[in-house]
Amino acid sequence: MKVGFIGFGEVASTLSKGLIGNGVEVYTSLEGRSIKTRILIEEMSINICKNYKEVVIISDIIISAVVPAKAVEVAREIGKYSKAVYVDINNVSPKTVKKALSYIKNHKTADAAIIGSIKKNGINVQIITSGKSATQFAKLNNYGMNIKIIGSEIGQASTLKMLRSSYTKGVSALLFESLYTAYKMDLDNEFLKCLELTECPGFRESAISRIISSGFHADRRAQEMEEVLEMMSYGNPFISRATAEFFKTLSKKLDKIDKKFEDYKNLFEKISD
Amino acid sequence: MKVGFIGFGEVASTLSKGLIGNGVEVYTSLEGRSIKTRILIEEMSINICKNYKEVVIISDIIISAVVPAKAVEVAREIGKYSKAVYVDINNVSPKTVKKALSYIKNHKTADAAIIGSIKKNGINVQIITSGKSATQFAKLNNYGMNIKIIGSEIGQASTLKMLRSSYTKGVSALLFESLYTAYKMDLDNEFLKCLELTECPGFRESAISRIISSGFHADRRAQEMEEVLEMMSYGNPFISRATAEFFKTLSKKLDKIDKKFEDYKNLFEKISD
Repeated sequence: MKVGFIGFGEVASTLSKGLIGNGVEVYTSLEGRSIKTRILIEEMSINICKNYKEVVIISDIIISAVVPAKAVEVAREIGKYSKAVYVDINNVSPKTVKKALSYIKNHKTADAAIIGSIKKNGINVQIITSGKSATQFAKLNNYGMNIKIIGSEIGQASTLKMLRSSYTKGVSALLFESLYTAYKMDLDNEFLKCLELTECPGFRESAISRIISSGFHADRRAQEMEEVLEMMSYGNPFISRATAEFFKTLSKKLDKIDKKFEDYKNLFEKISD
Repeated sequence: MKVGFIGFGEVASTLSKGLIGNGVEVYTSLEGRSIKTRILIEEMSINICKNYKEVVIISDIIISAVVPAKAVEVAREIGKYSKAVYVDINNVSPKTVKKALSYIKNHKTADAAIIGSIKKNGINVQIITSGKSATQFAKLNNYGMNIKIIGSEIGQASTLKMLRSSYTKGVSALLFESLYTAYKMDLDNEFLKCLELTECPGFRESAISRIISSGFHADRRAQEMEEVLEMMSYGNPFISRATAEFFKTLSKKLDKIDKKFEDYKNLFEKISD
């Protein structure tokens, strides 16, 4: 089994390591990579091709794992050479994945999304997939991966990932907002204790980590929520709309050196301690 | 120790049972009670007074556990007779509890709120309390109760309960909304499985039970969210406002026999099965 990676960030390097350990031949290219990535690739038993065109030609399964903004571009560049299965595992919207995969001329495509933390789970991380060639992609389960087919259409896997991330973002926004109200009344600590009583074990740690990462990534989350809203536009997504608004405002509040928003920052700093 | 109950619904009967088992003398009155409640009271070892005035006069601690709409009325009627500690454990807003307790002429008052399920936990259910006389009320911990003092001001306990219930309502609304989007794409089952992967154990059961009870109590929740919004009015509660809107709309959708909303009902029925 020959697997080619387009792009070589955390996802590709983690999966490569696991696949090689299970006897897979892994291919990639140093084309346009940073020195750090080049060193990383050269230290691993990876077959290095001259360029991505070569990777595509030699592989049985091609996995596109690039930065979201490049997903369409790479597919357009190399899509015509692929005789294999082309899997888009990038963190992009259903609309974008459809566009990217439309450039794969042989139509052997699968949409894939990582659920949970690849850092924590390595090659065992849950991957969901959909599309005509999802079954072929899932054959990598014989080589240590944990791929689950959820449908036969391109876009289903990324829709599910987006819905899930909209849910977790909503919970974070809700937590932040309620905790802020409690904080204004000097009841923040009691509020967390109170939720702990009936929520599941580990609630406090997970709540605090959600709030902190909401603060740090408020701007990116606001942008991601715009994509969610586009996807949900035929319905009336009250909470998702409010979540988008929340992150937009939070990002402004945490950015500004503004007396009016000092309390917001104070809570954030208190929680981050 | 003599504890008097004003009102005798589930809260009073459950606490009475536990307190009597721990050697407390419990007092109440049959004044205005239904036949069912009268029978219940007469089957327990409860001291029956002619009226609530007598209950108030004889008790060391008076617990008001009536329907929310009656909290202020009973306090106004009997507040002048109380020489003991008067505890309002009703499910009312901070504003209402302040109004009710303003009628207690001796000013020995405590605000109390039940956190979690009294049905499941009995006398051990977590109760939070605040106010000048919270310490005296918490002496009932010597008789099997589980009371936690969270502050010295009337309104803090009910604020915390309200914030908590606004959080759990928000989660329910978010779940319903995301699941509905998934359902429209025929991905509802996969969506729940996907959340299960990273949320805590028991997530699916708790999610389904939250969605079902959201459907059944949408109207009441919409009303309760209005009270939450009033409390949060100085801030900018995006999510709570959206939660209120969500429940208002859900209640209309589930009520109406309307083609347009059939999908909403279908999901609800599918989940309720």
